[in-house]
Amino acid sequence: MKDTAAPVPPSDRTRVRRGAEKAHYDEATLHAIVDDAYLCHIAFSDEHGAHCIPTASWRSGGHLYIHGSNGSRLLKQLVRQTCCVTISHLDGLVLARSAFSHTMNYRSAMVYGRFEAVEDDAGKHAALEALMDKLAPGRQAEIRPGNDKEYAATTVLRISLAEAACKVRAGGPNDDEEDLGWPAWAGVLPFARARTTPVADPACTVAAPAYVRDWQTPDAALAPIY
Amino acid sequence: MKDTAAPVPPSDRTRVRRGAEKAHYDEATLHAIVDDAYLCHIAFSDEHGAHCIPTASWRSGGHLYIHGSNGSRLLKQLVRQTCCVTISHLDGLVLARSAFSHTMNYRSAMVYGRFEAVEDDAGKHAALEALMDKLAPGRQAEIRPGNDKEYAATTVLRISLAEAACKVRAGGPNDDEEDLGWPAWAGVLPFARARTTPVADPACTVAAPAYVRDWQTPDAALAPIY
Ligand SMILES: Cc1cc2nc3c(=O)[nH]c(=O)nc-3n(C[C@H](O)[C@H](O)[C@H](O)COP(=O)(O)OP(=O)(O)OC[C@H]3O[C@@H](n4cnc5c(N)ncnc54)[C@H](O)[C@@H]3O)c2cc1C
Ligand SMILES: Cc1cc2nc3c(=O)[nH]c(=O)nc-3n(C[C@H](O)[C@H](O)[C@H](O)COP(=O)(O)OP(=O)(O)OC[C@H]3O[C@@H](n4cnc5c(N)ncnc54)[C@H](O)[C@@H]3O)c2cc1C
Ligand code: HEM
Ligand code: HEM
Repeated sequence: MKDTAAPVPPSDRTRVRRGAEKAHYDEATLHAIVDDAYLCHIAFSDEHGAHCIPTASWRSGGHLYIHGSNGSRLLKQLVRQTCCVTISHLDGLVLARSAFSHTMNYRSAMVYGRFEAVEDDAGKHAALEALMDKLAPGRQAEIRPGNDKEYAATTVLRISLAEAACKVRAGGPNDDEEDLGWPAWAGVLPFARARTTPVADPACTVAAPAYVRDWQTPDAALAPIY
Repeated sequence: MKDTAAPVPPSDRTRVRRGAEKAHYDEATLHAIVDDAYLCHIAFSDEHGAHCIPTASWRSGGHLYIHGSNGSRLLKQLVRQTCCVTISHLDGLVLARSAFSHTMNYRSAMVYGRFEAVEDDAGKHAALEALMDKLAPGRQAEIRPGNDKEYAATTVLRISLAEAACKVRAGGPNDDEEDLGWPAWAGVLPFARARTTPVADPACTVAAPAYVRDWQTPDAALAPIY
């Protein structure tokens, strides 16, 4: 596995045509977009047509992982067909002087390929521990671990991140020259994902560990992604 | 158009099978999820297989709207096939005492159907003005409006919200009885979409209007969706 930003040539499916100047095909951009997300949307089809299902996702090395019940329609279909996995972050509304030049700041990634099942117990355990580590580092050692029955009921799938494209828009508005004098406010209204006050279970008597105490976003950290 | 929460029976495609106790089929839940979103993900297919494309979306009455270039692959495909449009909000990480009982709080909506083009000029103008009203109420009157050439290059599509399902998970962890004594912190780590400090275009000399001055989320308003 490479950890550097290798320039990967786009495939027929991943070559961005519209707004191609916003395209990125390097691993560093892709990994950063995937790692900043807790969920993805997956497009696949069955006898009812196209479906777009949101599901928790995380990265380990060069793969994106998902999990669920052995009985899940989603998971059963995904090992049978190629699909498209998309992750999007909305960073801001871009307000230009002309209506037509309005846009949004965003970071998105689209991955194409086929999921494969993580069949062996060790791989399954490691994958679900990586999910926990992403959410709450250190928590894996505190909780009641999964038992054989629970793992046996669970399917873990992974898809290679090899065939992927990213599209990123950042910065202020780009009005046409002749619109620059128009007397409208112009700039960006940014968004950020804030981590708000933890809510303990009423029955919980255990002191909050560091990942709970440190959860809440300090106001100063809510810097615009701009 | 009805504005009340009518109970709509699910179709074959929209009947939630997994976690059916989280399903909602009423209009009020659906509209609230759609209105709280700035973007959707759309699943469709072409000769390359399935695609999942993120795009800006907004609601007017009983339809969801999207827009883009006449030359867009996405928009050209969407009037030719049925598709699935999904909107998801991640509200929190649910930390249970047992690994297996961990989950997420979320609100999601899946809409099935076929997009139709908004062909008439008046409808196109009204639709794009509704988008602007959603983002920045009052701004439509301040900016340089779209001209004929710009509107002629733009496709606006809409899809009926009639065939849709929502799935909502809220509240604290649901550990099994026998895990309740396990000494791990249990509760919810909530997320919220924060509106952070506006960034004016360096060349902008116009005073910030109300929708810019009032943009930033007051800390007190970052209440957990729980
Ligand atoms: C938050 C957000 C809002 C957006 N709003 C709009 C909108 O209102 N109108 C609009 O036209 N577009 C919007 N886009 C861009 C949209 O995602 C598509 O890029 C665009 O619609 C072109 O789609 P296409 O299938 O015609 O593209 P093509 O360029 O033909 O797609 C070719 C290939 O490029 C890659 N690709 C395309 N789009 C993306 C992407 N977003 N991320 C990663 N790879 C990609 C894929 O591999 C795809 O198969 C938005 C994107 C984001 C993230
Ligand atoms: C943030 C988030 C994280 C999630 N994480 C996971 C995860 O890690 N593992 C997991 O198994 N599931 C997860 N889900 C639930 C997931 O979206 C699906 O509901 C689930 O995977 C079952 O999919 P299925 O196609 O097998 O469902 P089925 O119940 O067979 O789907 C039947 C129909 O129900 C409706 N439906 C299904 N899911 C949804 C939905 N989410 N919203 C609205 N309508 C829906 C659709 O009309 C669908 O065609 C998550 C959802 C969200 C929003
Ligand atoms: C008169 C009003 C508007 C018209 C005529 C219009 C037209 C268009 C067109 C033609 C495109 C396609 C660009 C391309 O693919 O080459 C586009 C893209 C887009 N528009 Fe609009 N638009 C309008 C208003 C808005 C507003 C108010 C927003 C909200 C912020 C917006 C957000 C976007 C976004 C996010 C894209 C995608 C750009 C990308 O691919 O990065 N538009 N618009
Ligand atoms: C040992 C570890 C874990 C196992 C064995 C496991 C197993 C499962 C299984 C079997 C399902 C399917 C439920 C169903 O469809 O009936 C599921 C769903 C889910 N899991 Fe896990 N899981 C584990 C850890 C986690 C963690 C750490 C998270 C992160 C918060 C998580 C998030 C979810 C979510 C969001 C769902 C979807 C529930 C829904 O449909 O609302 N899981 N998990």
